[in-house]
Amino acid sequence: MKKLFILGTGPGDLALLTPKAKQAIAASTDLVAYGLYIDLMGEICAGKIRHDLPLGEEINRARLALDLAAQGKDTALISSGDIGIYAMATLVFELLDRQLQGLETSPQWLDVDIQVIPGISAMQAGASAVGAMLGHDFCTISLSDLLTPWETIKKRIECAALGDFVVSFYNPVSKKRDWQLNAARDILLNSRPATTPVMIGRQLTREDQNIRIIELQDLDAKDVDMFTMVSVGNSETRHIVNGEKEWVYTPRGYSKKL
Amino acid sequence: MKKLFILGTGPGDLALLTPKAKQAIAASTDLVAYGLYIDLMGEICAGKIRHDLPLGEEINRARLALDLAAQGKDTALISSGDIGIYAMATLVFELLDRQLQGLETSPQWLDVDIQVIPGISAMQAGASAVGAMLGHDFCTISLSDLLTPWETIKKRIECAALGDFVVSFYNPVSKKRDWQLNAARDILLNSRPATTPVMIGRQLTREDQNIRIIELQDLDAKDVDMFTMVSVGNSETRHIVNGEKEWVYTPRGYSKKL
Repeated sequence: MKKLFILGTGPGDLALLTPKAKQAIAASTDLVAYGLYIDLMGEICAGKIRHDLPLGEEINRARLALDLAAQGKDTALISSGDIGIYAMATLVFELLDRQLQGLETSPQWLDVDIQVIPGISAMQAGASAVGAMLGHDFCTISLSDLLTPWETIKKRIECAALGDFVVSFYNPVSKKRDWQLNAARDILLNSRPATTPVMIGRQLTREDQNIRIIELQDLDAKDVDMFTMVSVGNSETRHIVNGEKEWVYTPRGYSKKL
Repeated sequence: MKKLFILGTGPGDLALLTPKAKQAIAASTDLVAYGLYIDLMGEICAGKIRHDLPLGEEINRARLALDLAAQGKDTALISSGDIGIYAMATLVFELLDRQLQGLETSPQWLDVDIQVIPGISAMQAGASAVGAMLGHDFCTISLSDLLTPWETIKKRIECAALGDFVVSFYNPVSKKRDWQLNAARDILLNSRPATTPVMIGRQLTREDQNIRIIELQDLDAKDVDMFTMVSVGNSETRHIVNGEKEWVYTPRGYSKKL
């Protein structure tokens, strides 16, 4: 059977890579990924045929993974985090969908046996590093307007604000794009306190991890880069300081019972 | 140092338990959990002192974990899924917060060294089992009104509908509570197609896993129980059928480029 594993490796720390993902890599001969993710995994990927395609080549990466598997090569399509969350998994199914509609010319893709393996996503790495920021209803919003119109993104931020969701911003900024995060901050400031805790987590779980806890009013895109996760608490999220330790948590309402 | 690990074991399949969580269990002498989660882990928990408290005893479980760690016992507080998402982690920090405010009488808690370890959450297990349902902006909403007023939950569902988020419902029903899921369905039906794909995943990744893909108009609380995750697609989520295989994915907008 032609096998394609679509898997996420988690935020970076290999101790957060699931055994299931590791086994899938071991069972594959060919790995398709942005090279950095493979480098992060070191020995686990030794001896595999690497197909590194640069950032921006997402569609070609998905096609290549399907092509390799269709050729009978056990293949793993790899991303960091959870590959089902703002990552490559959906693109593979979009290509399959197009083939089923006759918009592609690769019927061999339809014979590939696909397995998707989830991973720990950046919002989870960030929330757990500072305590329990995702303790109540939350949402994720990508601030990248490459594929989604800003009007759609803006409406989602407004709805997140109105619903008082904890919000995790994926793709908060990029080299060429920096104003959306401040616009998002201003929308949230309309309906939650200026002092709402915000977690800014850079290179989460990696050696050069840097985490800061700030207030929503001080959130500024200039302090954030492509390797950073930004999570904003809801109106009840608390920032507590215990000596040298500090934590952020979003209560679920147990206070009535305590 | 007095150590408290707060960790999630993932949805059930031990191949989705992270090495970090496993190492934390190995490093602990005492485990505090709802007994079922420990049973699911089998050998990994052998030889540990188990402190099983039943469902509903969440506050006592958090207090017990803090007490044990404060007594110098390396302790793991365990839940399935991600313990930071609708689970015990936030309750521990809420207790610490109360102690810092002088509302508790356990200053020894403040000396405990806490580490939170994330896990694969049910929404991720469900989304990956059917393809890539969380491929674009999503939110999670707990339908339990034990701790959150229905008015708040309802408003969040309305905002999720308005923002066209993929929605994962945690605690969709319980033994005594069954009408909220149908109310949520009706709210979503006001703004997204009746044919919107819905994933109903029971006992995800476990031996008796059962997954059904239905249309939003057919979602009914009578088909859902406490062990079930319900995820509703956004207005663009697609259900595709390839022979005996079927998939659900939420596109990110690459279609413009394909």
